[in-house]
This record gives sequence, C-alpha cells and structure tokens, in this order.
Amino acid sequence: MLRTSNGPRIFVLGWTLSMICGLVLDFHHPHQLKAGLEGLNMELPDQPETLEQILVDCRDTLKYGVRTGHPRFFNQLSSGLDVVGLAGEWLTSTANSNMFTYEVSPVFVLMEEVLLKKMQNIVGWLEDEGDGIFCPGGTISNLYSILLARYHFYPEVKTRGMGALPQLALFTSEHSHYSLKKSAAVLGLGTDNMVMVKCDERGKMISAELEAAIVSTKKKGLVPIYVNATAGTTVYGAFDPLNDIADICHRHSLWMHVDAAWGGGLLISDRHRMKLQGIERAWSVTWNPHKMMGVPLQCSAILGLLKECNELGAEYLFQKDKHYDVSYDTGDKSIQCGRHVDAFKFWLMWKAKGSEGFEAQINKCLENAEYLYDQLQRRTDFKLVFDSKPEHCTVCFWYTPPSLRCLPAGPEKEAKLHQLAPWIKARMMEKGSAMVGYQPLGGKVNFFRCVLSNPATQQEDIDFLLDQIVQLGQYL
Amino acid sequence: MLRTSNGPRIFVLGWTLSMICGLVLDFHHPHQLKAGLEGLNMELPDQPETLEQILVDCRDTLKYGVRTGHPRFFNQLSSGLDVVGLAGEWLTSTANSNMFTYEVSPVFVLMEEVLLKKMQNIVGWLEDEGDGIFCPGGTISNLYSILLARYHFYPEVKTRGMGALPQLALFTSEHSHYSLKKSAAVLGLGTDNMVMVKCDERGKMISAELEAAIVSTKKKGLVPIYVNATAGTTVYGAFDPLNDIADICHRHSLWMHVDAAWGGGLLISDRHRMKLQGIERAWSVTWNPHKMMGVPLQCSAILGLLKECNELGAEYLFQKDKHYDVSYDTGDKSIQCGRHVDAFKFWLMWKAKGSEGFEAQINKCLENAEYLYDQLQRRTDFKLVFDSKPEHCTVCFWYTPPSLRCLPAGPEKEAKLHQLAPWIKARMMEKGSAMVGYQPLGGKVNFFRCVLSNPATQQEDIDFLLDQIVQLGQYL
Repeated sequence: MLRTSNGPRIFVLGWTLSMICGLVLDFHHPHQLKAGLEGLNMELPDQPETLEQILVDCRDTLKYGVRTGHPRFFNQLSSGLDVVGLAGEWLTSTANSNMFTYEVSPVFVLMEEVLLKKMQNIVGWLEDEGDGIFCPGGTISNLYSILLARYHFYPEVKTRGMGALPQLALFTSEHSHYSLKKSAAVLGLGTDNMVMVKCDERGKMISAELEAAIVSTKKKGLVPIYVNATAGTTVYGAFDPLNDIADICHRHSLWMHVDAAWGGGLLISDRHRMKLQGIERAWSVTWNPHKMMGVPLQCSAILGLLKECNELGAEYLFQKDKHYDVSYDTGDKSIQCGRHVDAFKFWLMWKAKGSEGFEAQINKCLENAEYLYDQLQRRTDFKLVFDSKPEHCTVCFWYTPPSLRCLPAGPEKEAKLHQLAPWIKARMMEKGSAMVGYQPLGGKVNFFRCVLSNPATQQEDIDFLLDQIVQLGQYL
Repeated sequence: MLRTSNGPRIFVLGWTLSMICGLVLDFHHPHQLKAGLEGLNMELPDQPETLEQILVDCRDTLKYGVRTGHPRFFNQLSSGLDVVGLAGEWLTSTANSNMFTYEVSPVFVLMEEVLLKKMQNIVGWLEDEGDGIFCPGGTISNLYSILLARYHFYPEVKTRGMGALPQLALFTSEHSHYSLKKSAAVLGLGTDNMVMVKCDERGKMISAELEAAIVSTKKKGLVPIYVNATAGTTVYGAFDPLNDIADICHRHSLWMHVDAAWGGGLLISDRHRMKLQGIERAWSVTWNPHKMMGVPLQCSAILGLLKECNELGAEYLFQKDKHYDVSYDTGDKSIQCGRHVDAFKFWLMWKAKGSEGFEAQINKCLENAEYLYDQLQRRTDFKLVFDSKPEHCTVCFWYTPPSLRCLPAGPEKEAKLHQLAPWIKARMMEKGSAMVGYQPLGGKVNFFRCVLSNPATQQEDIDFLLDQIVQLGQYL
C-alpha cells in the first residue's frame, strides 16, 4: 500500500522507472478495462471514495495507460517527456488561469508574446509583420490560417457569411494533413473546394501541378484564395518546395500558408533549416512545439495577423477603460474565449535548454532517423517505402517475413503484406514491448511509419524495434 | 535561496499559504514586467540557464501571477483550486497523451465515455440519445452545436460548403455569450444572421420575441435552423425559459441548443436543477465543469451526436484494421486532431467528492450569492442592477460613494458612476486585496459583477469586498 504523504513522488518515480526499464504499455481491450477486471472501477459514485482508494485509482490510471515518453514509443509525432516542460505544466495547473486578459494572466501573456516574437524571428519575419497565438493543436492552427485568408480577401464574410462570397477554392497537397480538409468543412468552404494537388514519390507537392490546378479551377469559375504548403508531412515527413510555391502564390495573388506543425522545429537547427527555405515568404505559419521540440501536450502556434479577423469586443471581458495597456488583452484574437496557458512550459524549457539545447535535441532525432534508414537499407528483410535519406524524423518501411519471401510479387503477396503490419503491431501492443504506427497510402499496402521525435531514444531502441518485428513476423 | 530538491513542494506550499493569508495579486504594468525590473527576465537565451535560476523563474512566475483560487478572486466564472483536480491535472501532464485514439489513451478514453454518459443522464437524455466530447472551452462547445445543427439540416455542407445552402438564420438572446456570434463568423454563417432576441429585465430571453423573430426572419427569405437558449447567462446568471423555447423549436422544426456552460453544474443540485427544466428537450448542450464545478482549466463538454458531422477517417490515425474495437477511437468526432486529456481530473474529482460533494459545493456557492444579495439590499450605499434573488452565482450592483450621493439623477451622475467601477477595480488590483469584474450593459453604466463560484469563499470575504469598495470609494 502506498503511503499517502509520498504518493505523488512515488507515482512519478515509478512512472520514470517504468520508462527506463519497463514496458511501453500494459494493453487491455475496452471491454476488459470497463469490466473492472483489472481493479479500476470507472463508475462515478454518489458518495466520496477514500483517499487511499483515490491513490489506487491514480496508480491504476497510469498503469493501464501508455508511456508516451518511453524511448520505444514510436507511434505518434508527439513523444518524450521533458522534465522541465512537465514542471512547467504542473505550475501552469497550479496557477489555474486563463489567457484571455492581462489582468488574470499578466506573466503568461507576456511570455506568450516573447515566444511568438522569437518564433516569428526564427521564421524570418520582420518585427512588425507578425502576430499569433497558441491554440489547441495544429488542426486549429491550420483552421486559423484559412480564416485569415478568407478574411483578408473578403472581410465582409464576418458579418454577412459565405453567402455574400463567390465560390472559393483552396489548395493543398494530397500528402498534407487531414486538418486542411476538416477545416474547409468546418468553415463552410466545403471539402470539394479544397483541391488536392499531386505529389512526387517522396510526398512533396509538385509545384507545376499546383499552378495547373489553380488555372483550371479559375476556368471552372471558382476563386482561388489560399495555398497550404506543408513543411514536414505527417506520414513521409516531406517538405514541399516553399519558394516555388511562394512564387506561384505571388503570381496569382494567393494567401500562402505553411503547415510546419511537424517540421517547424527544424528551423532551430543550422544543419536542417534549409529544408524550410522560403517559409519567410508565407503569410501565416503553423508550428507545433509539442511535436519536434518535445514540449508537453498541447503547445501549438499559429503565426499571422489575427486580431481584426476574430475580434468581437465583448464588454464583460475586454473593457477599454481598464487602467493598464489593454493591447495586452489578447483574448479577442482567439476563436476561443477561455484559453489554456500553453506558453509557460515552452518558455521554461527554452530557459533550461537555450536555443542550443533545442538544436542539439533536434539534430539527435534526425540522426536517429538516419540510423534507422541505414539499418533498413542493410537488412534484406526490410524494404523502404521510398529509397532516399529521410529529411525528417519519420521513416516508412515494409517488413517481409520468411513466409512471404518466396511468394511472387502480385495481388496475393500484397494482400498478405497488407495484413502483416496490423498483425505485428497488435502482438507488439499485447507484449507491451514497443509501439509503432502503420497505414496504407494511395496504392500502397500497409507499411510501418516509425517516428523518432523522442530524444531519449537510443540506437539500441531502434535495433530492438527491428528485431522485434522480425521476431514476431517469424510466427506468421 | 530555495533548496533544489524541495523546490516543487515549497512552491506549492507557498502558493497555498499565500491564498489563505496573502494577496490576490501583486500587480505590475506590462512595461514594468517586461523591463525585468522585478527580477523576471523574459528573454529566451541561446545557452541554458542554471537549475537555480530556473527555480527562481518559477517562483517569480507564480509571484507576479494572479491567485485565481484565492477566496477573494471574484473576477471570473472559473475560480477556486481543487487539490484533487490539481493532482489529476498533474498526472495528466505526466501521462502526456492524446485523446485521438484508444491505443494511446485507453484509460482516458473510457473515462471520457463514463463522464459524458453520466452528464447525459443528468441532463435527462436516454441512454442512446447522446454522444459528445470534451473540447477546449465553452466557445468551442457552442461552435460544435452550430456545426451539428447545420449538418443535421444540410449534410451536403461538409463537401459543398455554404455556397450550396440557402441563407440560414440562427437565434440567441441579447444576453447570451459572445461565442455564439463568434461561431457564426467562424463557420461562415455571418454575425448578421445570428438574430439577437430581446430579454426581460432579468436577462431571460422573451419567448414571444423569439417566435416573432423567427416569423419575421422567414418572411425576409432566410431559413431559420437553430436556437441557442442560455442556462446561466455570463453577466446576470439568468436562465432562459427552456420549455417555452423547446415548444417554439418544435413548432418550427429548429435545432435547440442549450448553452449551460455556466449553469450546467446546477443540474447536480436537487435544490437548483428546476431552473434548467426543459434542458432534456435540447438536441445539444454545452456544459463546462471548469466553471460551476471547480474542475481545473480546461474542462468543457459538448453533448450531442458528433461523429458523422466531423469524421474524415484519416488513415494514418483511424485505421479500421486494428485489433481492438475501433469505435473507441473517438478522435474523428472532434474538429481537432490532437486533443488534450480533460477527462481525468474531472473523473478523479468525482471519485473524491461523489455527486453529493459536488452538490454541497454548488449549494454553498449559491448560498454565498444570496448572502451578497442580502447584504446589498441592507446597505444604502449599494444598488442592485435588478432587484430579485440571484438564480445563479453572479450578483450585479453599483456602489454610490459619498461624493455622488447628493448629485441629482441625470447624465452627470451617470457619467461619474460609469468611471467609478474601473477606478475602484484599478485601486483594488494595485493593493492586491481582491478582484472583481465590471462592465456596462445595454443602456446601463459600468456596474460590478461579482462571481461566487469558489467554494473556498466565506461570508467574511464577501463582507471584505463590500467594505473594500466603500473604503476605496471614499477617496473619490
């Protein structure tokens, strides 16, 4: 039984230890956890539980959860557990405040400003070009970018709605994140009007295809307003040719947004920032420090001029007759009212690492991706989805088990290969040894997508993953 | 100097002590904090700072912040600091996971389901009527409700956009939250098409006005689809007549949403839930446990059938060939991709308090509001904005200082009264003794809006607030 006074320390210690030497997860199916077979009673009582039981509930909650900070958690773009970031999040919860006004969050509002200016500066914007906000995730950041574009060309949309506008068209690549389509649905633009531009075999938007799509869309009577270029696609980690896209946007007077949710962190690395050349020409940028920079969830920025687009001036919150400089009441830039404090943990991490610490951490993750790529090239039982050095921290590959090696290429082999990744992943989750994502894409059957954004991951963890896949695949 | 190993404990202890016996805030203007005069250097370094400096930064961040859990913080609808809720948030940060799929958040996904079912049950919906999600704040919850209504009547909007639809009209009261208008702007409906229905003197929507507005809007050729009724308005804390509004929605086949962001908590109280009679007839409901139930920020639910409205089926995340029941991959219901875990802290608080604990806490806050109302009635130097017993935990009033008492009613007195509330609030913030909101409304000059949602507030804190206003007003 845990001693009450030491409860929180023991939890966190246990959690940290389990990441160093333990399993990534202790998997149970929904019906198993719901049945309370494992001791966790989910139901909400009328009467209070004892403090002892609450501590048991806390322990069980962590026990049956997933250790996303484990060096063998390769499943998601966000991973790792930075202790300073965690401390920042704990203090944020302790302050329990809201970002809408300076009066309730004076320090956090100023920290947000400092961070956003720094990020704009790193993007390459001049001092007065930018503005921005932290918001709940990259999808919402991308949604903001479309809002900004629409308002820029048609400010009357705010009062009169889309009915007052011509039929608009937006462009993004077929490898871009689904948030672009989702935002088009939410904002009333319609997914049909989000034109998906073709990519090359590495997942980069083909700029000639973009220009052709713009021209043909105009011919159909639609009005193009917006192009999203992706800096670090979700699956391949590809970088669209930003300068070429910026040229096209300039020629056609279109809003250029760069979704650097996943790739933004590379801007901090002298070795890798050239992959985002041209980002300084964008009119808005999405950048998630909770992905490549290891900030605890959530921390996502949209950079761009937001204020007029979203402001409504609610009098109970944004009084103009306050005794301080009310330009620091930044809440009206947001489409939220109350807004979680996402700035402090990021600010604190920056203090503790410095830009150089972030750079080293990012370089290390990229080195891990290159190491995995090298290993995959060497081993004959693996095949890369595309055969070039990874530009970012995702590496995509197939594994061919002994039972499939002799099969001739064709539909039967493809079908079996398609079932293989889910099967291996399921066994891996049941063992709890590692987690890695998989998916099909276009005509390609299910392949593994290994993410290497956790700086705690070592080469031996990467070797372990490949050996584990081989070991499980043998039983097929 | 703080000892490193005890740092976090000392911070939290200091924070808690400062709430019991200290100031609500230590106010500084933006230029003062930015100049680093107070020791907090905001700038982001290239090189790491020392651990000692990081601890000083943490201490200063809390020092110059606002103690929103202080019993004399009457400024915002969200206040208080529940220790179990805080522990829940700390463990949530430690788990650092994401709500999109069961595979990365098995326990949290199930907890969310249990909580949402419980909330639906309390609203009065049958088992299979509901669904829902926790999302980042009441504004986003209300935005979801309009999305739901639009999709219900015009599912083609998702692919074809608003261009394929007639001109739609939505209805809400003039006292409702500004998020309704903001959502109309964001979703491409236009703020002009959000019809603001008149309220009575207590801030309740006049149902006859609603029906008249619907009829006249139809005559103008617009298509009404949606009515928002508010259960607990932001300023007066008023409850719209839900049954009357439900009748009207039924007659005109309109979507009925109830924004119970602020009032939802009262459903748990046998003494107060009749104020929300008719909520069970709504098709969607916003309910923020981070307001009236004291859950740490943020925790806001939208109840309603979300899935088809928002799903896009991204293949890298929502694979259908996983080895578990993928109906628990709830992320595609959301307009976000990554989503913060807001369920656990709420679940843990429910375990620790039971429904009865929440009920007692809510009843106590309402009693505090009644106590303030009684005091204001008794004291001749205060005047209530409307003279009836508060239905919720906001009380609105003016203070008339000695210098204004002899002035005859008229524009001069009104103008001086209008300047009074900001002046007193500013002095109060400079002293750090308390925080209370103010605002004008309609033709009314600035009045104080005192929020009593913190169960830690005692009657002596309420007396203190009034005495403090009198004391500061004397100097005018």
